[in-house]
Amino acid sequence: MTDWSGRFSHRARGFVASDIRDLLRLLSRPEVISFAGGVPASERFPVAQIAECIGDLLATPERVREAFQYGLTEGSPEMRRLLSQIMLAQGVTAPPSRILVTNGSQQGMDLLCRVLLDPGDTVLVEKPAYLGALQVFISYQADLVGIPIDEEGLSIDALQETLERLDQMQKRPKFLYLVPNYSNPTGVSLSLERRQALVRLAQERDLIVVEDNPYGEIRFEGNSQPPLSALADSEQVIYLGTFSKVFLPGLRLGWLVAPPALMERLVLAKQAADLCTNSFGQALAVEYARRGYLTPHVEELQGVYRERRDAMLAALDRFAPDCIQWTRPQGGFFIWVRLPQGWDARELLAECLEQEQVAYVAGKAFYCDEDGANTLRLSYSEVPPSRIEQGIRRLCRFFGRVEAGQRAGELPQAASTARAVPGPGRAAGAER
Amino acid sequence: MTDWSGRFSHRARGFVASDIRDLLRLLSRPEVISFAGGVPASERFPVAQIAECIGDLLATPERVREAFQYGLTEGSPEMRRLLSQIMLAQGVTAPPSRILVTNGSQQGMDLLCRVLLDPGDTVLVEKPAYLGALQVFISYQADLVGIPIDEEGLSIDALQETLERLDQMQKRPKFLYLVPNYSNPTGVSLSLERRQALVRLAQERDLIVVEDNPYGEIRFEGNSQPPLSALADSEQVIYLGTFSKVFLPGLRLGWLVAPPALMERLVLAKQAADLCTNSFGQALAVEYARRGYLTPHVEELQGVYRERRDAMLAALDRFAPDCIQWTRPQGGFFIWVRLPQGWDARELLAECLEQEQVAYVAGKAFYCDEDGANTLRLSYSEVPPSRIEQGIRRLCRFFGRVEAGQRAGELPQAASTARAVPGPGRAAGAER
Repeated sequence: MTDWSGRFSHRARGFVASDIRDLLRLLSRPEVISFAGGVPASERFPVAQIAECIGDLLATPERVREAFQYGLTEGSPEMRRLLSQIMLAQGVTAPPSRILVTNGSQQGMDLLCRVLLDPGDTVLVEKPAYLGALQVFISYQADLVGIPIDEEGLSIDALQETLERLDQMQKRPKFLYLVPNYSNPTGVSLSLERRQALVRLAQERDLIVVEDNPYGEIRFEGNSQPPLSALADSEQVIYLGTFSKVFLPGLRLGWLVAPPALMERLVLAKQAADLCTNSFGQALAVEYARRGYLTPHVEELQGVYRERRDAMLAALDRFAPDCIQWTRPQGGFFIWVRLPQGWDARELLAECLEQEQVAYVAGKAFYCDEDGANTLRLSYSEVPPSRIEQGIRRLCRFFGRVEAGQRAGELPQAASTARAVPGPGRAAGAER
Repeated sequence: MTDWSGRFSHRARGFVASDIRDLLRLLSRPEVISFAGGVPASERFPVAQIAECIGDLLATPERVREAFQYGLTEGSPEMRRLLSQIMLAQGVTAPPSRILVTNGSQQGMDLLCRVLLDPGDTVLVEKPAYLGALQVFISYQADLVGIPIDEEGLSIDALQETLERLDQMQKRPKFLYLVPNYSNPTGVSLSLERRQALVRLAQERDLIVVEDNPYGEIRFEGNSQPPLSALADSEQVIYLGTFSKVFLPGLRLGWLVAPPALMERLVLAKQAADLCTNSFGQALAVEYARRGYLTPHVEELQGVYRERRDAMLAALDRFAPDCIQWTRPQGGFFIWVRLPQGWDARELLAECLEQEQVAYVAGKAFYCDEDGANTLRLSYSEVPPSRIEQGIRRLCRFFGRVEAGQRAGELPQAASTARAVPGPGRAAGAER
């Protein structure tokens, strides 16, 4: 019997399983109402239009080849042109040569880390931040430093303080990673003022910013804010995009916009990683956009997810016990919930699943440090409105029982809990 | 202007561009007959059956979800069951739980490196070895040690000597990587006797073997040899497979069979790398196999590539100048050519392209050291037989001119060349 533990690389010894992966398994249990996954609504996948486009891809030998042969490492020329147009519509001038097609935007992050990070390098992240990003940074043995957020997103003051503190320690962060629009996990967006301040600060301090924008198009109300990439010099901000939320996640289509000097290394990294992104997905996305289907589909999805967001907020307003706070996102897939100080959302999840068959993601996993035990993420994206109401009612009933239990018989815990509640902390500002 | 060079990770500073990537660009120039790419024959992609299968995938909401929603990191249960059956047909007992679906087998290699390699770790490779593997090993800063091959594949004696030499240096290789069937680049296969000897040696020395088998099914004649995985303990050999040569490369579908202890880390590595492999490709491959199309398609492809191999060998027999040697593969996509000692295949490529519009891959890139300047790889897989004859005639005409030029006016070079020809060296045994 081979002893494998001694053979692992140092990086692999630090790999940790994520809550999300384990929770994806729950999606398949029909009795569970899952607010955990955060995946798109598959019943809204545009089947008829997909069939039309595929018919076109199969119609001539040239198109068959385009769709099923090996492709270029950088992505197909047609796909990169489409992405250049999509970026331009957002106010970002990026020629196809600065765009790399990736196997989902997760791979964009992975390739960036591969090219930029040595073990022990510092990466700045939001508190809380997207779990999949934290995981990839940790897998490259990065040293993560968290910057708190409030209702306008990343705190620029806190960022400045952190940069100064790191300066004194002679540490220079490799980059700052953030999700400026309808963030995963909080649903909060970065205000225009802060975007401008962030870009100014980044340029002053020569700080590279990695802007991940999966949800920007899923906007329900309020103004659309320009990407950081539209406000900054093209050398300062790296942009990550994806078709997973607005088209078909199962195609694994993401992209990355980077300065030329970085692109060259990223392409070599991509080539070693998997040669090229699947050609079929690229050909399908290009055909779908060429036929003018993408924009109306995004508009339809905005309506679908707005209705679900509304249903979840209405149910929370109606059923939640007073001790619970949550965000009111203007787009995206997520609502962020803060339980009373001292509650442990991860411990409660098992009970909640057993007693009420409702799933969420405990918030701790989104923190780069030990904070967030009393937070959780709810996703409304995949659940029809009637099930959302039912699920939130059950969830709130559960939390109501926890609260009542603490006030009643369980005085020792209630007392220790009471001592631990100094009112909402800094990060609590994210809730309205 | 940001100075990027100082920001790259140590690993990224060592990234090198490959000949193959640059040559893939040549594929699109119609006047060039390219023996460079080594990609499958896209005109044989089974379009009618693909259309049928896709019709099925679009027919019900459940199948649409299966094909286009996010999937499990490990791969879909149906896909892993199919791969378990495919392995069993090759004599390898591997439950679905030991199979990881990857974004092509290139990603399988990348994930293995991620989990097993620290900078400076030793990896054993064939001389010559698959270029894409060398690239990924180098990107993980591995220390590559080459083992020569001859007409029966990897030299087990040389492997044993190398292991002893490394022992004396207190170095333990992390693994040996090889392509035992119709190898890329040489077309040579490992004999049954050597397979058995290799497995014995690996078990004695507790050497992990990574067996990459993209071409095993593309067999024209001779006996099918069992995979090393069928001969060894399941802890000793890691198997890499792919659908790229027998189905559709543009789907990027590969897999990896690994011991349970390794699987757990590999799945976490895959999750950080790109969350999951594209669902559509998996659903399509499963449906294609379920309908019984896979086996007859592979048989058809054997006929297609056999005809091309025959055409290339016949043309070489007819047109090649006497100073050129080549392999006679019994399967796969490649013929390996050895030019006279002192010729530089990389330098000659530019002239050959200009004068005769024929492309090949210079062999040096397949060597982990400085050898192989006078070798080159020809692929017949993507070129119809009539073009193969035309291209080989042109290529041989070119090499004939080079030879004549050296014998005639260019005596100084011819003299220095003559001194450097001691007869075929060890690796030259690969040619018949």
